[in-house]
Amino acid sequence: MGEFDLIKRYFDCPELRAGPVMSIGIGDDCAMLDIPQGCQLAVSSDTLVAGTHFFADMQAHQIAQRSLAASVSDLAAMGATPGWFNLCLTLPEANPQWLAGFSQGLACQAHACGISLAGGDTTRGPLSISIHAMGWAPADAALSRSGAKTGDAILVSGSLGDSAAGLRLVQANRQAQGYLVERYWQPTPRLALGQWLRQKATACVDVSDGLAQDLGHILKASVCGADLQLNQLPLSSALLAQVSQAQAQDYAVSGGEDFELCFTLPQHHVASALAYAQDSALPITKIGSIGGELGCRIWHSDGTEYQPQCGYQHF
Amino acid sequence: MGEFDLIKRYFDCPELRAGPVMSIGIGDDCAMLDIPQGCQLAVSSDTLVAGTHFFADMQAHQIAQRSLAASVSDLAAMGATPGWFNLCLTLPEANPQWLAGFSQGLACQAHACGISLAGGDTTRGPLSISIHAMGWAPADAALSRSGAKTGDAILVSGSLGDSAAGLRLVQANRQAQGYLVERYWQPTPRLALGQWLRQKATACVDVSDGLAQDLGHILKASVCGADLQLNQLPLSSALLAQVSQAQAQDYAVSGGEDFELCFTLPQHHVASALAYAQDSALPITKIGSIGGELGCRIWHSDGTEYQPQCGYQHF
Repeated sequence: MGEFDLIKRYFDCPELRAGPVMSIGIGDDCAMLDIPQGCQLAVSSDTLVAGTHFFADMQAHQIAQRSLAASVSDLAAMGATPGWFNLCLTLPEANPQWLAGFSQGLACQAHACGISLAGGDTTRGPLSISIHAMGWAPADAALSRSGAKTGDAILVSGSLGDSAAGLRLVQANRQAQGYLVERYWQPTPRLALGQWLRQKATACVDVSDGLAQDLGHILKASVCGADLQLNQLPLSSALLAQVSQAQAQDYAVSGGEDFELCFTLPQHHVASALAYAQDSALPITKIGSIGGELGCRIWHSDGTEYQPQCGYQHF
Repeated sequence: MGEFDLIKRYFDCPELRAGPVMSIGIGDDCAMLDIPQGCQLAVSSDTLVAGTHFFADMQAHQIAQRSLAASVSDLAAMGATPGWFNLCLTLPEANPQWLAGFSQGLACQAHACGISLAGGDTTRGPLSISIHAMGWAPADAALSRSGAKTGDAILVSGSLGDSAAGLRLVQANRQAQGYLVERYWQPTPRLALGQWLRQKATACVDVSDGLAQDLGHILKASVCGADLQLNQLPLSSALLAQVSQAQAQDYAVSGGEDFELCFTLPQHHVASALAYAQDSALPITKIGSIGGELGCRIWHSDGTEYQPQCGYQHF
């Protein structure tokens, strides 16, 4: 099977075109794509390497789902609407069974996100996946990291720490199942929430490296400080059934890869965000506020300070 | 050195912002970019893996230059104007000397192409480089592969086979120098020619996998055939000084990675293309014509048919 047959069979299929129509898609030197008038292109790139970000012996459809979800989550964090993605797939060999599984997982996630495969590259080498996600947002309406202001509330969607706990279960047993493992394999990009937050949130980030580290990006870009209440971090009952509360809180603060949104809101928008949460069945929790000295402080309920572990460091 | 320090030091620098201003660049979840009104986004992704596409012991600045040139060449082949690129860099270790060389080579090529680094990802793993090049072309004016028609002339820019010969020299001796080696390390994306060809060429492709294979993409997409004259393929004097004419012709037909443009033109545009070549000091050569049965035939001057080797196959 040559490169072009491989692309034709596993990637140039209707199931991978859940997004907007393309002027030119797979099969030319470039894809040609239409950004809606008055909107800016939003683009983000992520690489996942076997042995670093996932285990090479994981199921291909899971690897695909998780890779695409992680990339699309960056669009969500900007309040962008997903459009297309390019896939650079490096494979040690062209294994039809693996490719069929990968293609199915990719199609499943692409459908859930309403995004189309526009192009990419397949090459031979150590297994890795690089995804370039593209979308759009109205001009100058994207949610950046740099607008948080003293007095803003800090909120987070969903629950935190589930993915970190799921990863531990998978590390111990590749066949592990259940809610926590699913949150690791099939994180949900919070696209609708991101778009709802446009014109409301002053800053937003997705929780990929760990809450403390990702909120730290907002604080650094916005040049401000934050106080968080440890006992207000949203923890799922599945997580609390699996590990101690202290361990669950550690995962929530430093675990990463939950792909929930952490955002800052002026106080007058907090009530409507909580109402939105009720309507959309996606929990949103106020976990602290912007203010005080630079840096992030996390407080136990007894008023002593919690010391977070470090978030994920690639080098 | 952490990931964020590494990005700050080697990639978030003015030398890598030779393209249009960015609404949001490096340092947020997505870059936010403005496509000029009335234009479509052109996007292409390429991965280069150490051991497959280049030798890991090559100089970092050369690897960077060649990687970016290869990606931007796809924009040239569509007639697009370059804007930005995302870089996914997977490294076995954060070696400051290597990173400094890579950053310099990248900046040099980015400046030559007028393109800005908008974002990307740095991860740990086996050395590989994935570049996502973005640009724009007026709506529906991009050069696709699918418009070639019977009677069109087939033309090619520059000379063919130099890069393949340069690669052989580098394989034998990493310190090899000279014109052929330079054509391998520093191919020139034919951006101005690509833009000039808009509204004139009926199909266009860049020569990355080898002339026969890349022209084959045009023939397949356009559902037509072609006849090429072997003795009309443009060969540089440096190439003919290095290898026999027969070897030079083999490299020209099947060598790949010259990143010249191969395009089809209605006969009434051929004279103006040759005049453009004179004005721009970039040779353009007519090498054959579209017509006859499906597939590509290459003819010796004695009327017998030449049998090409295969172009590059990833799998």
